[in-house]
Amino acid sequence: MQPFVGHRLSRLFATALLMLTCGTMTDLQSAAAHGDPVPKGSPADPYREAAKRIIDAALSSDVAYDRLVALCDDIGHRISGSANLELAIKWAAALLKTDGQENIRLEPVQVPKWVRGKESLMLTAPREISLSMLGLGWSVGTPAQGLEAEVVVARDEAELKALGDRVKGRIVLFNNAMPPYDHVRGTRYGHTVRFRSRGARMVAELGGVAVLVRSVTAHSLQTPHTGTQSYGKGQPPIPAAAVTVEGAELIARNIARGTTVKAKLSMQAKMMPDATSHNVIAELRGREHPDEVVIVSGHIDSWDVGQGAHDDGGGVVMAMETIRLLRTLGLRPRRTIRAVLYTNEENGLRGAKAYAKVHAEELSKHVAAIEADAGAFAPTGYTLQHHDPSAERRALRRLRGLVPLLAPLGADHAAQGFAGADIGPLRPAGVPLMGHRTNMEKYFDLHHTAADTVDKVDPGEFARNVAAMAVMAYVLAEMPERLDAPDSE
Amino acid sequence: MQPFVGHRLSRLFATALLMLTCGTMTDLQSAAAHGDPVPKGSPADPYREAAKRIIDAALSSDVAYDRLVALCDDIGHRISGSANLELAIKWAAALLKTDGQENIRLEPVQVPKWVRGKESLMLTAPREISLSMLGLGWSVGTPAQGLEAEVVVARDEAELKALGDRVKGRIVLFNNAMPPYDHVRGTRYGHTVRFRSRGARMVAELGGVAVLVRSVTAHSLQTPHTGTQSYGKGQPPIPAAAVTVEGAELIARNIARGTTVKAKLSMQAKMMPDATSHNVIAELRGREHPDEVVIVSGHIDSWDVGQGAHDDGGGVVMAMETIRLLRTLGLRPRRTIRAVLYTNEENGLRGAKAYAKVHAEELSKHVAAIEADAGAFAPTGYTLQHHDPSAERRALRRLRGLVPLLAPLGADHAAQGFAGADIGPLRPAGVPLMGHRTNMEKYFDLHHTAADTVDKVDPGEFARNVAAMAVMAYVLAEMPERLDAPDSE
Repeated sequence: MQPFVGHRLSRLFATALLMLTCGTMTDLQSAAAHGDPVPKGSPADPYREAAKRIIDAALSSDVAYDRLVALCDDIGHRISGSANLELAIKWAAALLKTDGQENIRLEPVQVPKWVRGKESLMLTAPREISLSMLGLGWSVGTPAQGLEAEVVVARDEAELKALGDRVKGRIVLFNNAMPPYDHVRGTRYGHTVRFRSRGARMVAELGGVAVLVRSVTAHSLQTPHTGTQSYGKGQPPIPAAAVTVEGAELIARNIARGTTVKAKLSMQAKMMPDATSHNVIAELRGREHPDEVVIVSGHIDSWDVGQGAHDDGGGVVMAMETIRLLRTLGLRPRRTIRAVLYTNEENGLRGAKAYAKVHAEELSKHVAAIEADAGAFAPTGYTLQHHDPSAERRALRRLRGLVPLLAPLGADHAAQGFAGADIGPLRPAGVPLMGHRTNMEKYFDLHHTAADTVDKVDPGEFARNVAAMAVMAYVLAEMPERLDAPDSE
Repeated sequence: MQPFVGHRLSRLFATALLMLTCGTMTDLQSAAAHGDPVPKGSPADPYREAAKRIIDAALSSDVAYDRLVALCDDIGHRISGSANLELAIKWAAALLKTDGQENIRLEPVQVPKWVRGKESLMLTAPREISLSMLGLGWSVGTPAQGLEAEVVVARDEAELKALGDRVKGRIVLFNNAMPPYDHVRGTRYGHTVRFRSRGARMVAELGGVAVLVRSVTAHSLQTPHTGTQSYGKGQPPIPAAAVTVEGAELIARNIARGTTVKAKLSMQAKMMPDATSHNVIAELRGREHPDEVVIVSGHIDSWDVGQGAHDDGGGVVMAMETIRLLRTLGLRPRRTIRAVLYTNEENGLRGAKAYAKVHAEELSKHVAAIEADAGAFAPTGYTLQHHDPSAERRALRRLRGLVPLLAPLGADHAAQGFAGADIGPLRPAGVPLMGHRTNMEKYFDLHHTAADTVDKVDPGEFARNVAAMAVMAYVLAEMPERLDAPDSE
């Protein structure tokens, strides 16, 4: 919501705020933030000077934010199979070339092409009311004249089961509410999203003719949220769409009052033949071990609404900017830092799978893979996952020694946790996976909606994201050992 | 956002919370809240028992919330001149009859009839982007084929003036941002709304062909906000529409980057001949001075989007419920309490003007007029306005002696301030005007949008609103003197 014209000011303000908030950090972190001498022996010590240079450069540059604006405004949303996605891929490759990056490659990937077409949802009983909606990815369409049926409602699996035969021939609305963001329990997206991802299966199994899902969000202004879903094998594919919180509540209230609700759903959605897309790859080659790789990544595709600013234009630009900043500063680390802009995260993960397959031989030399796909709000730190539990413990311990470098950015949190969908396929090869995390309090207000636009990205916060990723990637590529290396005696 | 099914629970929870929060009140208020004996001599003393009965009844009844749901779900939005508005008027009159109210009248009022028709806004340069929009009330339409022109942007009057000749033949976007809600300065709606209400005049004067206004809100999820506007005499009426915060920022960013932006606006909006509507009036007649009147009121019309739940279904039901509760409890005060459900507040104020005219002879015996048109969030208290400054001081002093009765509801704030648009025309007659206030922190997120729906009204908060209005109206109708009576020696 930050006005574009104020972004330089906003960044300065962010820097000033950081200085003020240092008082809440540990002494060690605080000392680092103020550039004071720190106790000897911290594993972060060797990287303090480089980190300071990177942070200063990121916080005083407009390039990252200007590029995010260009991606969002000049290209816009970019669903797999769309001309826009390939425009974005060419845009990124051209900039990486301008930046003087090495080994720039577009690796072809066959991606699913789902097309939304025209769509609408109208209550036809008790009275005509047009409802805001968005069809779900991979959904089939309805017959051309639409599909009209009575609506029944279930909050969860138990209520669906209790409906039993009443599902047959009817439209089921899943009215499962996402709880408000909780600082202890987080977003609980993973729990709430199950009706969006698997609702059509549950309903088809009981003979329902379509499924409506309450949008996965805790805050709505009549805002529908799309997202992907899948059908069960051997089941009839039934149309699936998201309604707004308000629409779901309206239907549920009517039914609770004993009123019969009917709806007419019209969707032209369909799957087209697979299309050719590309993962975009570019490198800052390592000075000592160029065959060893630290990945920095995001996904360049988005849903077909809004601008894909937080999801995941921000991650894409952070990855590009990481290697641009380091190159500009003359900071070429021991190992290669490889920016990977995955295609087709949203509805297929084909880019991620293709990367893991094409680069299978190299994966033993991938020393870490970072993905930023958790918004571009204020950075908070990193999550870490490893295929091997003891390696995970070692890696997390080492990571905790390094994150004080990010304290001036407020990004010094390190914890075990989900790292990213696109880097997931690298896990079986023993690659340490790291998730670049941001404050997700408002993320699911915007996620997969027309409101995921670049005005929601604060320039000062975005600069801090870039700084955090660049410092982290630099250190992982520069440190003598892998993050998950066996402990030396 | 409160699920309907939980509203009984929510109300109990609100009651429990009130008891817990009593610790923050003054001793006097706290004692009152706990039903303890209170120091003698408080002007609130004579009404404590009645207030307690009213509050208990309001907080343990579902009637008010169920009626608000019925108004919102069964009828929905209700713009002046629409069939829905007259349905709502008949619905209210029928319930008032069921409730056994006296002197139920539908007083005819000729109201403007503005019809939105189909409308759309498409950026045509630098590339085609469809923008969410809502035409503004009273706006003319565009030619049938739409109106396409370059867009120029101004944040305020000074920037508009600086554009000078560049306005001619172009569409002007006013990109004036509403600041976030501030607990000291409030919503600042009155300041920000000027571009919506008078933007078309400013632009027509400089030869512009249409006006776009950034929606008057500090929080948007691609949410357009409609509202009324007016044309200047002798000026060409130009089409006027609201865009979302996101749309305004997109256009402004493009222009700031040096990109020419063109837009095609298509609106079928038009004014029809005036229609007949009605103010709804019903009374709880006074036992001693039935000719003296305390008004409780809201407006029954709404914009033609959403459900008009906070604006102003809540106010309408509060007024109806005030006299229903008092009648049910056998609390017939000295004076008459008259519920007035004004028509056409949103785009004409014709109901308010008609009431003042038709009842001109009675106004000297209107001892107070309360309007609730500031949302149905948690009640906070009352504002007061009086034509005569010294009468205003006296009335405010007396009001401050009475509001401790509302402390158990959190509604014991009293201050000088705007009371309500519909009761405004009563001011010259010396009627003390009182505004029923609620917590407006989120009000302008919803105001005049498709998201002003009944799920945004919390049942527990709504019951507290009803309780506050009923207590206040009872006391004003029962106390021996008028609120603004001269001080006795």
